[in-house]
Amino acid sequence: MVAMNAVRNIEWIGDAARGHLRLLDQTRLPNEQVYLDCCDVQSVWEAIKRLSVRGAPAIGIAAAFGCVIGVQRVDDSAAFLKKTADHLATSRPTAINLFWAVERMKRVRPCTGETLLLQAKAIHEEDARMCRQIGEYALPLIERLDSRGHGVLTHCNAGALATGGIGTATAPMYLAHERNLAFNVFAGETRPLLQGARLTAFELAAAGIDVTLICDDMAAQVMREGRIGMVITGADRIAANGDTANKIGTYNLAVLARHHSIPFYVAAPSSTFDLSICDGTRIPIEQRPAREMTEGFGRRTAPDNVKTYSPAFDVTPNSLISAIVTEKGLIDPVDRARICMVLDRI
Amino acid sequence: MVAMNAVRNIEWIGDAARGHLRLLDQTRLPNEQVYLDCCDVQSVWEAIKRLSVRGAPAIGIAAAFGCVIGVQRVDDSAAFLKKTADHLATSRPTAINLFWAVERMKRVRPCTGETLLLQAKAIHEEDARMCRQIGEYALPLIERLDSRGHGVLTHCNAGALATGGIGTATAPMYLAHERNLAFNVFAGETRPLLQGARLTAFELAAAGIDVTLICDDMAAQVMREGRIGMVITGADRIAANGDTANKIGTYNLAVLARHHSIPFYVAAPSSTFDLSICDGTRIPIEQRPAREMTEGFGRRTAPDNVKTYSPAFDVTPNSLISAIVTEKGLIDPVDRARICMVLDRI
Repeated sequence: MVAMNAVRNIEWIGDAARGHLRLLDQTRLPNEQVYLDCCDVQSVWEAIKRLSVRGAPAIGIAAAFGCVIGVQRVDDSAAFLKKTADHLATSRPTAINLFWAVERMKRVRPCTGETLLLQAKAIHEEDARMCRQIGEYALPLIERLDSRGHGVLTHCNAGALATGGIGTATAPMYLAHERNLAFNVFAGETRPLLQGARLTAFELAAAGIDVTLICDDMAAQVMREGRIGMVITGADRIAANGDTANKIGTYNLAVLARHHSIPFYVAAPSSTFDLSICDGTRIPIEQRPAREMTEGFGRRTAPDNVKTYSPAFDVTPNSLISAIVTEKGLIDPVDRARICMVLDRI
Repeated sequence: MVAMNAVRNIEWIGDAARGHLRLLDQTRLPNEQVYLDCCDVQSVWEAIKRLSVRGAPAIGIAAAFGCVIGVQRVDDSAAFLKKTADHLATSRPTAINLFWAVERMKRVRPCTGETLLLQAKAIHEEDARMCRQIGEYALPLIERLDSRGHGVLTHCNAGALATGGIGTATAPMYLAHERNLAFNVFAGETRPLLQGARLTAFELAAAGIDVTLICDDMAAQVMREGRIGMVITGADRIAANGDTANKIGTYNLAVLARHHSIPFYVAAPSSTFDLSICDGTRIPIEQRPAREMTEGFGRRTAPDNVKTYSPAFDVTPNSLISAIVTEKGLIDPVDRARICMVLDRI
């Protein structure tokens, strides 16, 4: 199920009893493609902690495989599973998929290496399948790009590196590439942490997809030149009315897309919806530390003690979103009624 | 005439016969505030070449003082002046002010160290006066900021560092600060070369002005939060109809400002207008090298051989510009007729 050309970021090597977890070390990207072989629980914990594996779905999958490692060479699998699962859950504070995955592992009965490995692989494959479903629903959006421009603009990394499959926003790109469609991708570098430059440009180029890097402040000009036919991004949390929180800069692109009459899409699994909040005003916006902006990549690029304002996310109002693509189908138009209808599908 | 609090980027030290040019080395900003003492023509040439002094007006002023150095301790002032002026003109290819300044120096009669120094100082002071005039015309724009938000957003560096005075876009900020008005500035960092982070944040903070650095992709969110009451930028070239070429990212902000009903202003001397081109479609857009985007922060932040698209400038259509502030007055509305009217003023 893991896609053809997408970079292999998480892989179980060997059998349940003596196998181990192989992770692509994302902290070394884009300069080096180095794999980490995690043969004990602590190395999995540390890989999650230091962001060698990142992206909510990918973290959950890595932790699930970590649980398998936790019961290798022990007498009492059940006791060690609980200990391992609870420990892995402390590696990152906010990724909901992490807690969900280790809880699911804890419920496996009978609790043996083999059954646990099957469950971890199921979690991995379900995520890959979900990505592919999102891709299938989003593919027509790329197919219908016309002479106006074949460029697809994305932001941050909602890609294969963040998931167990071909990503969410990137899913239709991998499928379109597989089917030899004429299109090309523009990746915004995504300041301050440059996930677009470091991760999205890397994974798409590695898959042979035509990708061009731009700075975030170039997006309007690139749109004006007619190079962009659609924008697609991931989402961190979507309110009941469709207002979408995502990496800072997403709302920026949504406004620019509207001004240039370019459709703006969000791709996200149904688990991203938080129906307990009625709209985006209820989504809290985390502030990031100044040093990410002032000295994030080697040398210092701003005066000492400069004041910074660095929201980690922004909220794009539903009125600027042409459609939301989930594994259950396309939500279009983006409103409360249509969201309920699509999410209620089995 | 050089303003009170603005950083002193160009200064003549001593008399005509034995004096020298002192430049703030902008390549060392924002980390170190180092001055270069240029005592021979070649060191002035190199300071311009390696961008120790940058900004079209500042380059012209530095070259004018370089001409004074060229005739020190020589017998035939006129011959050495021509040689010096022609050599300094080769230091940068495009800055129109450079050629204009050295030609003006070549016409000085009688040609002595004293007369040349007077002319160079006149060029410096005229530029400072022009900045202040722009500031006086733009000050009411800051004065009328209301409860909607006292933030002034700017981009790149159209500041004191680029001119002989208090800058163009920054001019009303220095004057408003002098008059204790309530306002604060947001400086977009301005990828790829980070002039906003390295230069604008530095010079405004050095003058005691309340400045906050943001990444370019945060501008929409900051506007949405009601923190911005106006946007003001400089200009590289303005067409006869008011379409304005400026540093990449300017058009981005103009679109965002319009969406949020925030006024968008351009501040530039009348010499920036190119009435020979009827609109912005005639302004060529230079492409910048990939490495500025991929390794501008110190270490490499994008995959090897990644494709990049890096326009140096963009063009903001007159319809998105609320007013253009020149040393001759405010152009509002921005159209061909009003531009002719204001520029025709003595």
